[in-house]
Amino acid sequence: MEVPLRWSQALIPTLKEVPQDAEIPSHRLLLRAGMIRKVAAGLYTFLPLGRRALLKVERIVREEMDRAGALEILMPALQPVHLWHESGRYEAMREVMFGFKDRRGGDLVLGPTHEEVVTTLAAGEIRSYRDLPRNLYQIQTKFRDEIRPRFGLMRSREFIMKDAYSFDADDEGAKASYEAMYEAYRRIFRRCGLDTRAVEADSGAMGGSSSHEFMVLADAGEDGLVECAACGYAANLEAARSRPAAAPAFEGADAAPEEVPTPGARTIEEVSAFLQAPPAQFVKSLVHVTADGPVLVLAAGDRDVHDVKLGHALGADARLADDDTVCEVAGVSAGFVGPVGLARPTRIVADEKLRGGRGLITGANREDAHLRNLDLARDVPDLEFADLTAARTGDHCPECGEALTERRGIEVGHVFRLGTKYSEALGATFLDAEGQTRPAIMGCYGIGVTRTLQAVVEQSHDKDGILWPVSVAPYEVSVLVLNRAHDPSRETAEAIVAGLEAAGVEVLYDDRDDRPGSKFKDADLVGIPVRIAVGERSLAAGEVELKLRRGGEVTRVPVERAVAAVGEQLEALRAELT
Amino acid sequence: MEVPLRWSQALIPTLKEVPQDAEIPSHRLLLRAGMIRKVAAGLYTFLPLGRRALLKVERIVREEMDRAGALEILMPALQPVHLWHESGRYEAMREVMFGFKDRRGGDLVLGPTHEEVVTTLAAGEIRSYRDLPRNLYQIQTKFRDEIRPRFGLMRSREFIMKDAYSFDADDEGAKASYEAMYEAYRRIFRRCGLDTRAVEADSGAMGGSSSHEFMVLADAGEDGLVECAACGYAANLEAARSRPAAAPAFEGADAAPEEVPTPGARTIEEVSAFLQAPPAQFVKSLVHVTADGPVLVLAAGDRDVHDVKLGHALGADARLADDDTVCEVAGVSAGFVGPVGLARPTRIVADEKLRGGRGLITGANREDAHLRNLDLARDVPDLEFADLTAARTGDHCPECGEALTERRGIEVGHVFRLGTKYSEALGATFLDAEGQTRPAIMGCYGIGVTRTLQAVVEQSHDKDGILWPVSVAPYEVSVLVLNRAHDPSRETAEAIVAGLEAAGVEVLYDDRDDRPGSKFKDADLVGIPVRIAVGERSLAAGEVELKLRRGGEVTRVPVERAVAAVGEQLEALRAELT
Repeated sequence: MEVPLRWSQALIPTLKEVPQDAEIPSHRLLLRAGMIRKVAAGLYTFLPLGRRALLKVERIVREEMDRAGALEILMPALQPVHLWHESGRYEAMREVMFGFKDRRGGDLVLGPTHEEVVTTLAAGEIRSYRDLPRNLYQIQTKFRDEIRPRFGLMRSREFIMKDAYSFDADDEGAKASYEAMYEAYRRIFRRCGLDTRAVEADSGAMGGSSSHEFMVLADAGEDGLVECAACGYAANLEAARSRPAAAPAFEGADAAPEEVPTPGARTIEEVSAFLQAPPAQFVKSLVHVTADGPVLVLAAGDRDVHDVKLGHALGADARLADDDTVCEVAGVSAGFVGPVGLARPTRIVADEKLRGGRGLITGANREDAHLRNLDLARDVPDLEFADLTAARTGDHCPECGEALTERRGIEVGHVFRLGTKYSEALGATFLDAEGQTRPAIMGCYGIGVTRTLQAVVEQSHDKDGILWPVSVAPYEVSVLVLNRAHDPSRETAEAIVAGLEAAGVEVLYDDRDDRPGSKFKDADLVGIPVRIAVGERSLAAGEVELKLRRGGEVTRVPVERAVAAVGEQLEALRAELT
Repeated sequence: MEVPLRWSQALIPTLKEVPQDAEIPSHRLLLRAGMIRKVAAGLYTFLPLGRRALLKVERIVREEMDRAGALEILMPALQPVHLWHESGRYEAMREVMFGFKDRRGGDLVLGPTHEEVVTTLAAGEIRSYRDLPRNLYQIQTKFRDEIRPRFGLMRSREFIMKDAYSFDADDEGAKASYEAMYEAYRRIFRRCGLDTRAVEADSGAMGGSSSHEFMVLADAGEDGLVECAACGYAANLEAARSRPAAAPAFEGADAAPEEVPTPGARTIEEVSAFLQAPPAQFVKSLVHVTADGPVLVLAAGDRDVHDVKLGHALGADARLADDDTVCEVAGVSAGFVGPVGLARPTRIVADEKLRGGRGLITGANREDAHLRNLDLARDVPDLEFADLTAARTGDHCPECGEALTERRGIEVGHVFRLGTKYSEALGATFLDAEGQTRPAIMGCYGIGVTRTLQAVVEQSHDKDGILWPVSVAPYEVSVLVLNRAHDPSRETAEAIVAGLEAAGVEVLYDDRDDRPGSKFKDADLVGIPVRIAVGERSLAAGEVELKLRRGGEVTRVPVERAVAAVGEQLEALRAELT
């Protein structure tokens, strides 16, 4: 049985002023509604209402993970650093990890993730294919030494994650484990009242073969994605593909290449202005350096080469060349480099979107000169094509060809297929049915639990405050007595509170000795989904006011119907989230 | 609805061998029953069954804290170090805190406790006496850089605590807050099936006026306590009082002091053997140094001066003097020091238990000599008495005079009255009804949640394994099918599992293809309270076996009664814990 909370005995320090250092609506509202307080940069205390909402998100996550057959464990936040050396990730991750020595000189880090610990556990406990599949998860506190903690719980230095790790005997099993998590994630976010997109993502530093991010669309999101309204295709900017448009053909498409002087005009902006041609007609020619030598990378003048895509295309890390290398390769300084007439033979890779391009303009490999009428197929032998630039609004959906739209999003979950990277490095092997030792095939699956809580607020609020979905609201119903000194009002309110308590409803009872206007304002700010207000005027007619926070309709219900009416509203609200 | 767990799909890696580095039964059993695994010294992973049991302890703690009116919050583990300088505790605590710099050079520590953070929160949010009382609690992970982590979860470097902090306007309120927590703690431990003693404790480094520890009696406990079987008085060794016994009078009680040669005999053991007198007849004379100068401390030869008690008696920190200071005070080296004829006037404080002592032997303040026939009242003017030594078995209860018994215990909880130490240091003040600014009066209340879990095992096990109380058992019932290949057995077992699931019972279903003996052994080791075994022989008679893990009685019940019979047993087991 949930005990109702009396506001007069609670700790709900609502703020009238807008906190100065909170940049996005959800951060401001969590502070203003008395849900969280900042302890230091990127470190927050959850106050009682925030803690309750967070526990509800945790419970939804736990129920759905259990339902999907995952097994809950709890690993320590402190991890011996040698595990990170063994996995080979120490150098890549050291900057974001808090690390220190213990009193006996041992090196420890605070885990930003737990692949190393869980794979070591599996190495010790999983012996045979009969022990597979297994999916181990935890709801646990993670730490990251962020360069710039911001946006409250969105990018904090200490946060709660649900992280799960699956171990399978074969690819088919790994795929099934991945799909089970994908489905569980859809259910989790739906139950939290979140509208999310499962977008194709790049696996990045985690390694592995495929991955999806679950994004909450929000203008304040730190991540970019494209989506197709027609077929539902969605991908983050690192991973987004697009169907090639018609080959870009410009004026001069059939003419022979011709050098034109462009004195001092190096950037696309400068040369575009100088030659009176649109940026899309230009080809950027960027010398990159890889472990296998220099590569000339081409992209349309109005697009940026994407590092992650370039890395995938080249199968290696690549960085922009320094001035000396540019000169060596092109015989000219950056700004006038082009694919025709390089000083030395060089691999050339062009963005897929340039395929078939004609009538283009690029550097002439001579100081203060550009080349026009470029036909890539005709003029650049041995040219390779690859997907090097991010998709954007207006590009064609790779699935259906309709126009893509660029959006901003908050990443609340991520599912990865890891393959055997960690199981091989850390010895998580098993004996298969033929008695052969093989590495387990892994997946990993994360949900930012604290971030999810804030994403709910980012997606569900209005100018007056939070609009909690009933599933994660700190309380389901708030009851306000407008004038505490008026005995019949107070007695009616308390009878309704008791009735709701008996019905198993979670009630926040605003029993404060305060002005009605101030109580209404606080109720809107805190955002409990259903509100009952007991005032002298309506009570004279034997009624109380029932208001839904979302939508805002106010209806009058007879006092004796109040508990039942609340129950009906809650049932309807819950039904929306299943 | 709880989904039954199939052993064949679980992760319950029971061990046949006794783990080598586990010194106490509960640690060995948690490892052997597949509840926890060590990651590094003092760092453990909770495996699925251990995690479930831990969640149950957490839930009991949460329910009782909520019932007591405390408000749940969640503070970060990372704390800015300046808070510890402000509270004045940094020097005292730095050794046990993991500390480090973040990438921007800020000093952070991992909180071993949260007085600093919560008091700072209260300073910001509590304004008026109308905002009081408040009790804020969290269930959260703590960190301590232990010199010697050991005994599994008992003394680990990362552990879960429930810590609560009360803020009151006056002493009466603070006392009521303290008592509410004291009662909540009794309920929490009773519901966890623990037999605890609430013992008087010393407030130690926390400051404050009164405190109790909740101890689980266990031979493996790291803490000492005394208790009185007659009246229930109990106290830890730092705090234990005892009623003075008859004044110690030995042979020579009425004779004049007399010097005797004791060449080379310095220790109580040596001089006791040399003079053929019992250790109790001797008076240890120990020169201590305090900020106010040297103090000679006297205690019976068979008792040890207790640092904390001495600190309280002197009102200051005291440490044993170095050789030079001993010589300066007594004119002789340690081993021959006594209270009569010191080289310079010195404050002398004797243990209360020496009051009225006569016929005693002590150092003569001359090399290789002792003094006998010492009568403290007659021979040592201006002697002060204080309680300086720990109580022990046979001492008289301070409440009723009966004999005390020394016991070992595991501290699972602690309640402190803190007074205004932290609220003054960190500015947690409020305006009282007269408009005066006053510091809030605080209490703090801790429960070692992970330690409590292990204490349950330490108190509830037998030679075969764990005996979980039903309230914290990972599952309530285990169902074993003895021969999975026997279709009627398997079908019966699965029908019972389904029936229990439908009845809301948490079931661990041992469906493994394994020998019955091995399954019985694992069931005893894992310790689920009620066990149903489905075997061919009893099934032929239409029956299954029902066994209570504690007590071990096996009864046969008709298959169709199995679910109901389990329900009755669970009800009885639950009733024992309320």
